[in-house]
Amino acid sequence: MAPKKGLLQRLDEGVVIGDGGFVFALEKRGYVKAGPWTPEASVEYPDAVRGLHREFLRAGSDVMQAFTFYASDDKLSNRGNESSQKYTCRGINDAACRIAREVANEGDALVAGGLSQTPTYLSGLGKENTQKEFQRQVDVFVENKVDFLIAEYFEHVEEMEWAIEVCLRSGLPVVASMCIGPKGDLHGKSAGECAVRMAKAGAHVVGINCHFDPFVTLEGLRKMKAALDAEGLKVHLISQPLAYHTPDAHKQGFIDLPEFPFALEPRICTRWDMHKYAREAYELGVRYIGGCCGFEAYHIRAVAEELSKERGRLPKASEKHDMWAGGLKMHTKPWVRSRAGREYWENIQPSSGRPFCSSMSQPDNWGVTAGHDSLKQKTGETSEDEIALLKAKRQKQSSAASNGRVA
Amino acid sequence: MAPKKGLLQRLDEGVVIGDGGFVFALEKRGYVKAGPWTPEASVEYPDAVRGLHREFLRAGSDVMQAFTFYASDDKLSNRGNESSQKYTCRGINDAACRIAREVANEGDALVAGGLSQTPTYLSGLGKENTQKEFQRQVDVFVENKVDFLIAEYFEHVEEMEWAIEVCLRSGLPVVASMCIGPKGDLHGKSAGECAVRMAKAGAHVVGINCHFDPFVTLEGLRKMKAALDAEGLKVHLISQPLAYHTPDAHKQGFIDLPEFPFALEPRICTRWDMHKYAREAYELGVRYIGGCCGFEAYHIRAVAEELSKERGRLPKASEKHDMWAGGLKMHTKPWVRSRAGREYWENIQPSSGRPFCSSMSQPDNWGVTAGHDSLKQKTGETSEDEIALLKAKRQKQSSAASNGRVA
Amino acid sequence: MAPKKGLLQRLDEGVVIGDGGFVFALEKRGYVKAGPWTPEASVEYPDAVRGLHREFLRAGSDVMQAFTFYASDDKLSNRGNESSQKYTCRGINDAACRIAREVANEGDALVAGGLSQTPTYLSGLGKENTQKEFQRQVDVFVENKVDFLIAEYFEHVEEMEWAIEVCLRSGLPVVASMCIGPKGDLHGKSAGECAVRMAKAGAHVVGINCHFDPFVTLEGLRKMKAALDAEGLKVHLISQPLAYHTPDAHKQGFIDLPEFPFALEPRICTRWDMHKYAREAYELGVRYIGGCCGFEAYHIRAVAEELSKERGRLPKASEKHDMWAGGLKMHTKPWVRSRAGREYWENIQPSSGRPFCSSMSQPDNWGVTAGHDSLKQKTGETSEDEIALLKAKRQKQSSAASNGRVA
Amino acid sequence: MAPKKGLLQRLDEGVVIGDGGFVFALEKRGYVKAGPWTPEASVEYPDAVRGLHREFLRAGSDVMQAFTFYASDDKLSNRGNESSQKYTCRGINDAACRIAREVANEGDALVAGGLSQTPTYLSGLGKENTQKEFQRQVDVFVENKVDFLIAEYFEHVEEMEWAIEVCLRSGLPVVASMCIGPKGDLHGKSAGECAVRMAKAGAHVVGINCHFDPFVTLEGLRKMKAALDAEGLKVHLISQPLAYHTPDAHKQGFIDLPEFPFALEPRICTRWDMHKYAREAYELGVRYIGGCCGFEAYHIRAVAEELSKERGRLPKASEKHDMWAGGLKMHTKPWVRSRAGREYWENIQPSSGRPFCSSMSQPDNWGVTAGHDSLKQKTGETSEDEIALLKAKRQKQSSAASNGRVA
Repeated sequence: MAPKKGLLQRLDEGVVIGDGGFVFALEKRGYVKAGPWTPEASVEYPDAVRGLHREFLRAGSDVMQAFTFYASDDKLSNRGNESSQKYTCRGINDAACRIAREVANEGDALVAGGLSQTPTYLSGLGKENTQKEFQRQVDVFVENKVDFLIAEYFEHVEEMEWAIEVCLRSGLPVVASMCIGPKGDLHGKSAGECAVRMAKAGAHVVGINCHFDPFVTLEGLRKMKAALDAEGLKVHLISQPLAYHTPDAHKQGFIDLPEFPFALEPRICTRWDMHKYAREAYELGVRYIGGCCGFEAYHIRAVAEELSKERGRLPKASEKHDMWAGGLKMHTKPWVRSRAGREYWENIQPSSGRPFCSSMSQPDNWGVTAGHDSLKQKTGETSEDEIALLKAKRQKQSSAASNGRVA
Repeated sequence: MAPKKGLLQRLDEGVVIGDGGFVFALEKRGYVKAGPWTPEASVEYPDAVRGLHREFLRAGSDVMQAFTFYASDDKLSNRGNESSQKYTCRGINDAACRIAREVANEGDALVAGGLSQTPTYLSGLGKENTQKEFQRQVDVFVENKVDFLIAEYFEHVEEMEWAIEVCLRSGLPVVASMCIGPKGDLHGKSAGECAVRMAKAGAHVVGINCHFDPFVTLEGLRKMKAALDAEGLKVHLISQPLAYHTPDAHKQGFIDLPEFPFALEPRICTRWDMHKYAREAYELGVRYIGGCCGFEAYHIRAVAEELSKERGRLPKASEKHDMWAGGLKMHTKPWVRSRAGREYWENIQPSSGRPFCSSMSQPDNWGVTAGHDSLKQKTGETSEDEIALLKAKRQKQSSAASNGRVA
Repeated sequence: MAPKKGLLQRLDEGVVIGDGGFVFALEKRGYVKAGPWTPEASVEYPDAVRGLHREFLRAGSDVMQAFTFYASDDKLSNRGNESSQKYTCRGINDAACRIAREVANEGDALVAGGLSQTPTYLSGLGKENTQKEFQRQVDVFVENKVDFLIAEYFEHVEEMEWAIEVCLRSGLPVVASMCIGPKGDLHGKSAGECAVRMAKAGAHVVGINCHFDPFVTLEGLRKMKAALDAEGLKVHLISQPLAYHTPDAHKQGFIDLPEFPFALEPRICTRWDMHKYAREAYELGVRYIGGCCGFEAYHIRAVAEELSKERGRLPKASEKHDMWAGGLKMHTKPWVRSRAGREYWENIQPSSGRPFCSSMSQPDNWGVTAGHDSLKQKTGETSEDEIALLKAKRQKQSSAASNGRVA
Repeated sequence: MAPKKGLLQRLDEGVVIGDGGFVFALEKRGYVKAGPWTPEASVEYPDAVRGLHREFLRAGSDVMQAFTFYASDDKLSNRGNESSQKYTCRGINDAACRIAREVANEGDALVAGGLSQTPTYLSGLGKENTQKEFQRQVDVFVENKVDFLIAEYFEHVEEMEWAIEVCLRSGLPVVASMCIGPKGDLHGKSAGECAVRMAKAGAHVVGINCHFDPFVTLEGLRKMKAALDAEGLKVHLISQPLAYHTPDAHKQGFIDLPEFPFALEPRICTRWDMHKYAREAYELGVRYIGGCCGFEAYHIRAVAEELSKERGRLPKASEKHDMWAGGLKMHTKPWVRSRAGREYWENIQPSSGRPFCSSMSQPDNWGVTAGHDSLKQKTGETSEDEIALLKAKRQKQSSAASNGRVA
């Protein structure tokens, strides 16, 4: 069997489809805890992780990203989380790589090892300490012969530069993706500057993941592309947005929305939203197109279906999904059969069924960022008193917001 | 090991938690085709079916319902579907039972075999033909020693009575559940009359599944209970609603909503909705409490968490979910930590993030029901011409609707 | 000049168009105080009252209803209101009749004197005292030779019967109109029973005004008509609804909505809503078609335009309004000219421009009705302490509501 | 009696409150035709115009702006309008000035004569022709001894400069106000540039009126102020926005919204919105604070009440409105009495009562501006064929919009 083509060759030749979100999907299935969001399920429930990888592979993903999100030692032991002790950083990252490789080899997919931002950085503990956290994960990825590395979910471009530096030592292709929107990073660096700095730091692919919906994310990528073009920098672009509509999010993205993380349901994108997303991303020149939190297999399948002409193939899972709702021709009810077709679904504006809810929210806007005391790493659990103080702060903020804002 | 307690004993002693929806979940995962909605995945992708059963078991389900929805011969071969030929009714039902039993035995769950309404009935082919379809499935269930039978998703109480008659011959406990709302069945029988007729036909448990959201469903159950009480009939009640908000659905339920089945996302219930549902169902006297389409493991877990005092235990999956969002105490951001607690989530009115969408839809209301030509079973595919005619009809109906209605 | 035709003859021969709402319109113009809502402007600012009558006359109203709403002595002196002392019941009612007659004679309109429910009744002071309040107003109406009487805005059919009894003594035609919806009066009497009792008490025209939007009001009238038909009672029907959408109001109508009375703007009906209202009312058999709070001249003109064929004429004010937006053909912008025409406006679903607001509200539902202590008449002002107690009660109620209700 | 203080002195010393919108208010009352929107009512129905002036005077307006909007000869004869022939430009402007002066002298108000943009300019007929139109109106204003001039409702700063030039010849103070938003004028000039050019052209007061809601308008004024400050230009600012919420309007403002002009009801601002508007405008440094289309007397009163401390007085109409809903203490129902107070109303998010409507609209965006053929002045009526062509264009545009946009 011929060796698989590498990431950069694939991007030069066409579109690479990423996968979707693991932590949100596995949280709903009962295998990940919201709050810490750490990925010890790779050790505890490998079948569940494997099953989810398979769904994405069938849906058209060209990349199996090992389930190592937030799997740095400092995160695994933050605020009362005991994952680090029970499973170790090495154990979790190693298990995740093996599962990803197993499923990748059931098709033609590549395996990526993933890093994300660290509590160490947020606590202001400096470059050396932060890079140690990254290095420990990268060591495991190299041992497991992953095909490339993704440094993703960074809110500060400075920490991202440190991550890229560590990743490049591996000799593998490096993808760098920040969780920012059109307004830039949390230290006030513009989206354009972030892109330029990631490219100059040596990343082969740069872009955005998480925190914003597909269309807000593409606005950010438009700014990134303009800045890269202005500097004459040639790198590929990656887009892996949320599958939640966030027109009302501010700079910090969906984390600030009052619905995060347990009442985001009404914001979930439809498969038709993803057709539009895939088309717009492709037209903008993005070639690594995937998703993040909320993106499920059927969202990825929609991306793959939209780009099936460009890619010359449909994904395996389309055996269970005739393009543009064609399967409805087999429905029992005639009025549902009449919904079979592109025009109907392309134009639908779906109702929420929630007449007592508004369409947009006022995000929290606490204005705290890296270095602030409340963001520092802490091994012990948060106490009830600390929570009480935070709730009081919430109360105060939301009165202020409501007085200063007209609807 | 002691034999498991039976369904009726469990219902007499406390609450039985059902499972969630298979066809919608597996459609999103890429293993079921929307339109025909038939369950050949039990043969084709047993791991995927098994994985979903396990999620529900972990979440607290006391019943593993074999994935045999719509697995009657006539449905498997309706309108161009080739499932019947490739896998046979017997093959699919048998595989489904074996998977359900395997997972049920990983815990203390029971196995149920399930029947649903048939194209044969809708085509007006009479009692004898309809009952033959049922009998073929029941034979497989009996061979597989399921613990009880569920006749569910019936729109006409007459067909339900025929199904109950077949089921009773097995000697197993029989659950009878119609997909109706407070306005009754599609032949104009009230919800109360439906309940009374199911009970008089011999069903041990009667109630409602699918087609409406939890709160509309409970309105229907309130009417059923009142009618049963008025007749002095003692049977248990079952509730297995959608996890989609449907305040705007008419008599035919969510199938009539323009968003069915590919744009229902903004209607998805939160876990907090399910806390309220479980509490209201329990207070009404419903003892078999589960879900149907859209219900995922985390919704079932919310039911189990709400009733944890009554049941004396939490489900296994609560190891990954501290009650009332307690896990958020471990979140990195202080304003998210401030959301840890019951009051915050119990009162949230989540926004849709969709300012261009309304909160309610005008359902299709074609007024066709059993016996109508357009509902008749048909082995061949629906032609493009037939679809064009249906689309023209849609166009006409929706102008009429918009003229007759003020918003 | 031939004498004008009387009300009953007009109703027998065709449609009578009522006027709109005075208190809400004059409140916005600065001549009526919300809270007491009493009509001393008839004495203080006769030009303003005359101007508003003229708008309705031009718009097509066949009735000038003297601005005597809530002009009974007990209301004029309730809770710190000093209108009674300053202007007297007699003074206000007399001035109002004279203004109404002046404008009526500028066209072919009739003059009506109006009574409404009394604090005396709500305070439980009995039939004799309540009827005294009515009699004082009727005396003035008779002296002023009004053409007929309207007893309107009654929440309890018992008080209405007492009012009809007083009105009938005058020998004038009597219209009886309650501010109820399809769920009936506040003592639990059904809408049908209310209609029957009003007709049996001798009213010549019965129906509904205020408290609900046009479409909810017509639902109530459907019930009234069915009950009257069942009893073989032949009376005319009157409909004078709000011009505010109230799909979410409960039994007490818009007063319970949190937006009452100072944030009802997003609920205001368009002129196109009134076309539909007029058509539906006419088809139901209602022949006295007007409006109440929120109904402005352009709403009445829309009623008159919709029924222009039946009436054989357009109202005077249509000189400034070509039917179905025809005037837009003269607009400067071409895309606005493209909106000239019936299809565009008949089908519009207007947006609120308020993405932070929901589409429906949870009404207050305090469950207090006639006889309850908090409803009793009181001459002195409400103290700050009393208001503080009421606010605390509000706080408690709204937490309860939010816990018991899912959106 | 001492002569009244002039505009500029008043602005130097404090706040000047403008009036509200005449064309929209009088359209609803039956005295102005939507489409042409011309002000011949000053001749035809002087009582109606006088009545509206009085409402604003009572509400706190310091300026009676003569009802001369769009009263240039070319507009009075555009597209089949016969106002010019019947009443003449001179006749209308003269009558309007006399009415305004009469009411102004009932209080301490000033009289302003108003100019607006012309079809002559839109038709590309050049500076000389355009200025002739302005001159004819200014001549009448000077004869009538108005206190100052307002050039308002200009979409192009170039035409505004021509208007200012004409106005300055009169020797009167000149207010210059464009109907633009934060995105600037229709020829692509930024809001800041517009402000600077108006100031440099000699206007004494510059700012924005119409087309956008209060809060979008203030965004535009923020940009104007920044540009003026940067140039060291000292002029006063004026703000006279719509009373319709327009968060979804694009560059051309509310005219592009599908609801314009006959379904704007759900967008109407509450009085509480106006409290916030007045406060924000004042804090920004705006000293001429009024309103435009949709602004009724109660909106102006809210502005005057909010600024009552700064002005040292309440308006006359506050005799009918206790601050912050205090009048509700006299309401019959206890739950309405509990709504008396600032906190309740300041925080209300009013529902629309329209569950079938969305919260935002997609504006028309035809991209035609001054000079485009479809915008040219035309004396004859628009033919049915022309309208049919425009409707076809609408159809095409709105499909395109819906395909290119995700909600």
